[in-house]
Amino acid sequence: MSILSDRISASIANSSWIRRMFEAGMILKKQYGEDKVYDFSIGNPDLPAPALVAKGLRAFAEKAEEPFAFGYMPNAGFPWAREALARHLSQEQGIAIAGEDVVLTCGAAGGLNAFFRAVLNPGEEVLTFSPYFVEYGTYVANHGGTFRAIPAEKDTFAPDVAGLEAAISANTRVLLINSPHNPTGVVYSREQLEAVIAVLRAKSAEYGKPIFLVADEPYRFLAYDGVSVPSTLPLYEYAVVVSSFSKNMSLPGERVGYVIICPNMPEKQALAAGLTLTNRILGFVNPPVVGQHIMVAALGSQVDLNIYAARRKAMAEVLDAAGYEYRMPEGAFYFFPKAPGGDDVAFVSKLQEQRVLAVPGSGFGCPGHFRLAFCVDEKVIRNAADGFKAAMQAMK
Amino acid sequence: MSILSDRISASIANSSWIRRMFEAGMILKKQYGEDKVYDFSIGNPDLPAPALVAKGLRAFAEKAEEPFAFGYMPNAGFPWAREALARHLSQEQGIAIAGEDVVLTCGAAGGLNAFFRAVLNPGEEVLTFSPYFVEYGTYVANHGGTFRAIPAEKDTFAPDVAGLEAAISANTRVLLINSPHNPTGVVYSREQLEAVIAVLRAKSAEYGKPIFLVADEPYRFLAYDGVSVPSTLPLYEYAVVVSSFSKNMSLPGERVGYVIICPNMPEKQALAAGLTLTNRILGFVNPPVVGQHIMVAALGSQVDLNIYAARRKAMAEVLDAAGYEYRMPEGAFYFFPKAPGGDDVAFVSKLQEQRVLAVPGSGFGCPGHFRLAFCVDEKVIRNAADGFKAAMQAMK
Repeated sequence: MSILSDRISASIANSSWIRRMFEAGMILKKQYGEDKVYDFSIGNPDLPAPALVAKGLRAFAEKAEEPFAFGYMPNAGFPWAREALARHLSQEQGIAIAGEDVVLTCGAAGGLNAFFRAVLNPGEEVLTFSPYFVEYGTYVANHGGTFRAIPAEKDTFAPDVAGLEAAISANTRVLLINSPHNPTGVVYSREQLEAVIAVLRAKSAEYGKPIFLVADEPYRFLAYDGVSVPSTLPLYEYAVVVSSFSKNMSLPGERVGYVIICPNMPEKQALAAGLTLTNRILGFVNPPVVGQHIMVAALGSQVDLNIYAARRKAMAEVLDAAGYEYRMPEGAFYFFPKAPGGDDVAFVSKLQEQRVLAVPGSGFGCPGHFRLAFCVDEKVIRNAADGFKAAMQAMK
Repeated sequence: MSILSDRISASIANSSWIRRMFEAGMILKKQYGEDKVYDFSIGNPDLPAPALVAKGLRAFAEKAEEPFAFGYMPNAGFPWAREALARHLSQEQGIAIAGEDVVLTCGAAGGLNAFFRAVLNPGEEVLTFSPYFVEYGTYVANHGGTFRAIPAEKDTFAPDVAGLEAAISANTRVLLINSPHNPTGVVYSREQLEAVIAVLRAKSAEYGKPIFLVADEPYRFLAYDGVSVPSTLPLYEYAVVVSSFSKNMSLPGERVGYVIICPNMPEKQALAAGLTLTNRILGFVNPPVVGQHIMVAALGSQVDLNIYAARRKAMAEVLDAAGYEYRMPEGAFYFFPKAPGGDDVAFVSKLQEQRVLAVPGSGFGCPGHFRLAFCVDEKVIRNAADGFKAAMQAMK
């Protein structure tokens, strides 16, 4: 028998494609040199954090020798940090959010885990549209829930409203969405959200219990060509937003995120109390002290979006020149082209032979495509052009 | 129906005594003023972090505008941070520990959750001795395990070896111990550990599978009068140590901890891989970047132990003067006296009437006692003397 539990042994055998490619990249870089490997595998933003982050850090360092500087605080985070964040989010989401409607978490991943632990009874179901960030399934399984993906509409990756309606049962507790979307770059329109919410309302009424709409939106800040990212909170009282500063402030390793409970939700205090409890009992206890300080210091500032826009353009040019089929992303920093030949795992191997690292769509519940994360220097994109061409040629 | 799951609704109704008293304290302090409330409820150390913490923070701030300063790293933590910590721990634990034997976690609570998620099959059992830190039961339940407490020996709070032997079944996966001990201040001797380990070895052989010994030891640094705190790692190949810098560096809110896998453990790589995975899928992802930097900067430094020794002496004098019965703690920063009258919850209310905040032993699976955390200024201890006397008088 293994030293690990059966389920964790199985998970390791079948480990995340994203992490596997990230680790393959580290080995290739040692072998060939950093600049000879074109790593589009992971969403680890290369842009430096905004200047206010370092400034906030220096300001906090001045107080770091005071008693309780790093002490415990309430498990939902420092009250002053929740208040400041709520003021910022009220602007961003277009609805008045109070400090008590926001629970600070260890990143968005910590927020999703805290939420699922708080609301799921054993066997209750969480739905999402595929393709999807594959860890969603693991987060649900952690807390005894059942996870099910509904294929998004073909080619456009829009939410399949009829498919959603057919999928919801008495056991459905949550619909989890992600817009701007990883891995496709799709941004849901207000009309699409309203159609989804109409189904949730009807089914909530039919089964006599609310179905939560959880919007995971770390890429809210990153939409191109003036596309707007509508908020779910003004549209649906059982909406919950989960997000973080991993992408807009390039702070993924610092683990500061949050859950917004819709200010119109009945029993919203109960949900806040539940999240505060699950933050604690899952072992997060609270998001890191320093992270909370720098978050407040830097609220409202973010990385330079023009850089991402230029990279998106560069990546589109590289893919066009090599003849790939793809849908132009409206947001986030991913392309999700079709895999030439149709076998995404095989094609990603072909790319890897060219030292171009991508993640197969299979890692997102969507074989036949592959994901490219373009949060890398524009030079890396341009220099990968020959590799993309050669891999395409190899399939012909 | 509630907006929360049934189990979380129940947990909230029955919430942690420690947190409840901590929050009651915040209200009393607003009402009467900080200096009129004698708060011994929570282990939130009041000593400032060592100077090297602030120094490390300032040094990191100088690099905070570089790309990837706050980026993702492998889920077990920065390799350089694991290496540095392993060198430090090799000294502390008296056994050669490699970087790969250490997994960095979000505090000890994060480490315990990651460990239980990695090893527990549904229904497998975790044993501990009572009294115990009440969240242990929750951590086990989070991951589908069964938790059971074996009463420690009466009055001495020593491990009940015969009780342990009788309690172990084919279903037992882990024995969790804590020395120096919260809430009693007991330190397990080498002989006591060896007796416990002899039982684990015999039962592991009987059932044909290893039983882990998990030593939760955030108070290792804090033993008085020259008492030594023996390590489990040289004694038992299935030993695992979980700890943090919350107490020795006063960093509880920063959430930096670790799991040490016994370097002699067969399949230790598999356990390290499992912990790395569960760190990620539980949503911790990795301990905070800044926390890892300041941990390495300050390794080996700690708060001034003489201050805790003086407080322990003061608390003993105050309790003696009021006529309480207690066992002098050998380590950690807690007293666990008998509750006059025998009803700990009632007696803690009497103390609260005197604005003295304590936690009932019921909150540690051990009614009839109460816990006093003396990580507070010595003045608070001295000024509480009248309150302790008045509460004692009220019981006569």
